[in-house]
Amino acid sequence: MTVRVAVDALGGDRAPDEIVAGAAAAASEGIEPVLYGPAGLDTLGLRLVPTEGAIEMDDHAVEAVRAKPESSLVRAARAVGDGEADALVSAGNTGAMLAASLLHVRRLPGVHRPGIAVVIPTTRGPSVLIDAGANADARPEHLLQFAHMGAIFAEEILGIGDPEIRLLSIGEEDEKGNGLTLEANELLRASSLRFAGNTEGRTLLAGGADVVVADGFTGNVALKTLEGTITTLLGILRDELASSARGKAGGLLIRPAAGRIRAHLDPETYGGGYLLGLNGLVVIAHGSSTRVAIANAIRMAARGVEHGVVERLRERLSAGVLASARSTTQTPEK
Amino acid sequence: MTVRVAVDALGGDRAPDEIVAGAAAAASEGIEPVLYGPAGLDTLGLRLVPTEGAIEMDDHAVEAVRAKPESSLVRAARAVGDGEADALVSAGNTGAMLAASLLHVRRLPGVHRPGIAVVIPTTRGPSVLIDAGANADARPEHLLQFAHMGAIFAEEILGIGDPEIRLLSIGEEDEKGNGLTLEANELLRASSLRFAGNTEGRTLLAGGADVVVADGFTGNVALKTLEGTITTLLGILRDELASSARGKAGGLLIRPAAGRIRAHLDPETYGGGYLLGLNGLVVIAHGSSTRVAIANAIRMAARGVEHGVVERLRERLSAGVLASARSTTQTPEK
Repeated sequence: MTVRVAVDALGGDRAPDEIVAGAAAAASEGIEPVLYGPAGLDTLGLRLVPTEGAIEMDDHAVEAVRAKPESSLVRAARAVGDGEADALVSAGNTGAMLAASLLHVRRLPGVHRPGIAVVIPTTRGPSVLIDAGANADARPEHLLQFAHMGAIFAEEILGIGDPEIRLLSIGEEDEKGNGLTLEANELLRASSLRFAGNTEGRTLLAGGADVVVADGFTGNVALKTLEGTITTLLGILRDELASSARGKAGGLLIRPAAGRIRAHLDPETYGGGYLLGLNGLVVIAHGSSTRVAIANAIRMAARGVEHGVVERLRERLSAGVLASARSTTQTPEK
Repeated sequence: MTVRVAVDALGGDRAPDEIVAGAAAAASEGIEPVLYGPAGLDTLGLRLVPTEGAIEMDDHAVEAVRAKPESSLVRAARAVGDGEADALVSAGNTGAMLAASLLHVRRLPGVHRPGIAVVIPTTRGPSVLIDAGANADARPEHLLQFAHMGAIFAEEILGIGDPEIRLLSIGEEDEKGNGLTLEANELLRASSLRFAGNTEGRTLLAGGADVVVADGFTGNVALKTLEGTITTLLGILRDELASSARGKAGGLLIRPAAGRIRAHLDPETYGGGYLLGLNGLVVIAHGSSTRVAIANAIRMAARGVEHGVVERLRERLSAGVLASARSTTQTPEK
C-alpha cells in the first residue's frame, strides 16, 4: 500500500523550498507526497496539483478559507475530504488548517472540537499532550473530549494499555486551577477514564502522565516553553563549553551523548501534531519547519494512516465514550 | 539598617526544619529573620513569635485565613501590616498568602490585583515574568496593571531603562491568542508602555522581553514548565554521560560549566517571587523550598526592602499610570 500525502507547498515560514525538499526526502516505496502549489513550482520530480493563491500566517483563518477556495491549503484539505489523498500535511496557519479541515475533511460523529495531539518524548517514554493549540478558548466538556481522544490515541497508536490521564494545571490538588480546569477536573473525575488528577508543567518532560490534557492556549504555551527551553539550554551549554580549553575537551567527549539527546528531543524529529477528531488524517507541522521536520511530518502522517488512527477513533467514539459530553456549536478559532 | 523579615516557619513541604535552617543561614548584620511558629520550636537561636496553628496546602485559602487568625502565616502577614516587620516570606499555600496579604498588608492605592513577579535569568540578562501565579483567572485590565507593575519593577530594581513589554501568547501576531490575551493586547497597544507585541513560551529562557505579562494560570504553567524542563534535561545529560566511559571522562571535564549553568538557572538560586501591588514587601517561595531556597528568598525580601520596591511602586502608581484601568472588585483566588 502506498499512502498518498497531500502536502501544502505554500504553508510555513520556509515555503516552498524547504517543503518541497522535505516532501522529496519523505518519498519512498510506501509514501507518495503530492504537492499542492502554484503551477510551475519545481517539485523535484514529485506530482503537483496546481492551485491558486496562498493563506498567509496573519490572515483571518475562517475568512481566508472561504475567500481562497483554490489556495494550496484548502485544495489539499479538499483532496483528503474527496478521497484523492489519504492525509494532509501543512506547516501553515494553524487556524486556517483547522477551518479548512472542518470544512472539507469534516468532524467524526460526536466530536465537538478537534484537538492537536503532540507526542512528547519523555524520560519515561512517549506521552501525549492534547490540545497543543487548535482551540485557544475551550470549555470544560471540550477538555473531557480531548482526554478521550488522547486516551484512544495513546492506546491504539502508542500501545499504552489503560493510559493514565492528567489535567495540566497549577497544582496537583483538585482545588488548584482556574475556572476552566476546576470544572474540567470534575468532569474527568466523573468519567470512565483513568484520571489521576492534575499535573504541573514541571512534569511534562519527565513524563507526568500518558496523556496530558489542556486547552489549546495553555497546551501551546507549555509546548513552546518546553521546546524553547531545550533549545536555549543546549545552546548555553555549547557556549559555556566553548569558553574554556577544559570545556572544549569535555565538549568533544560528550558530543555523542549530546547528539543523542538532541535527536531525541528535537521538535524537528517528531515533526508535528495530529489534528484528532476529524474524518481524515491531518498533521500540523511547525511554522518554522525545515525540510527535516517536513519529511518527518509526512512520515508521521503515513504512519497514522497505516495504523488506522482515524478508523480507531471512529470505532471507539461510536461506541459511546463521548455520550456524556453535551452538544455544542463548533466555531473554529482564528 | 537591619531588615526584619517575618518568616512563616510552617509554610512549605519541608517546614519547619528547612525553613528554620534557611532563616538561620540568611541571618546577617543587615538581615534579622524572625520566625513565626509554634512555641517550643527550635529556632537555632533566632527570635520566635509564637503562633497557633498552620494553614495547609489544601486548605481553602480565604476561609483558612479567616478561620486561623493566629496561624503562623496570618500572624507573619499582620506583623508586616503593623510595621513590626519589614517583609514577609512564606513557602506556604499561595492562595492563603495572597488572602492574608490582602487582609493585613493591604493593596497599594489603585491596584486591583497583586501579581507575582519572578525574575528569570535569561541568556540576555534578567527578565520579569508577571503574574506567575497569584490570579488563576484574570481580566484584560488586570494584565495591563501587571504590565505597569512589571515595568516599574524592571526599571527600579533591575535597572532596565524603558523596559520592553510583551504579552505571553500563542503567536507573535496581534491576532493570535485567546479571548483574554486578544483584549489585553489591545489595552497594552493603547497604553503608555513600550509594548512590543506578543511573545511565545519559546523565548522565555532566551530573553524575549524585559517584562513578560500573563494571567496567573498561564504564567505559572509556563514558569513550572521552564523549571521542570531545565531540571529534567540536566538529569538526562548526567545519565547519558554516566552510561559510557567516554561520557564519564567528558562529564568530569564539563563539570565546572554545568555547575555554572545549574547555579545560574536553578530556581533555588532565585528563591521566589515578589508579590507586587501590596503596601508591604512580600516574597513567595516555592512550596518545595529547601534551606538554600529559603535563605535566598529571605535575602530577596531584604534586597526588595533596601531598594524600596514598595515605595517606588507607590510613587509611580500614584503618578497616575494606572488611571486607565477600570475599577473592579477584588476577590482573591483560592
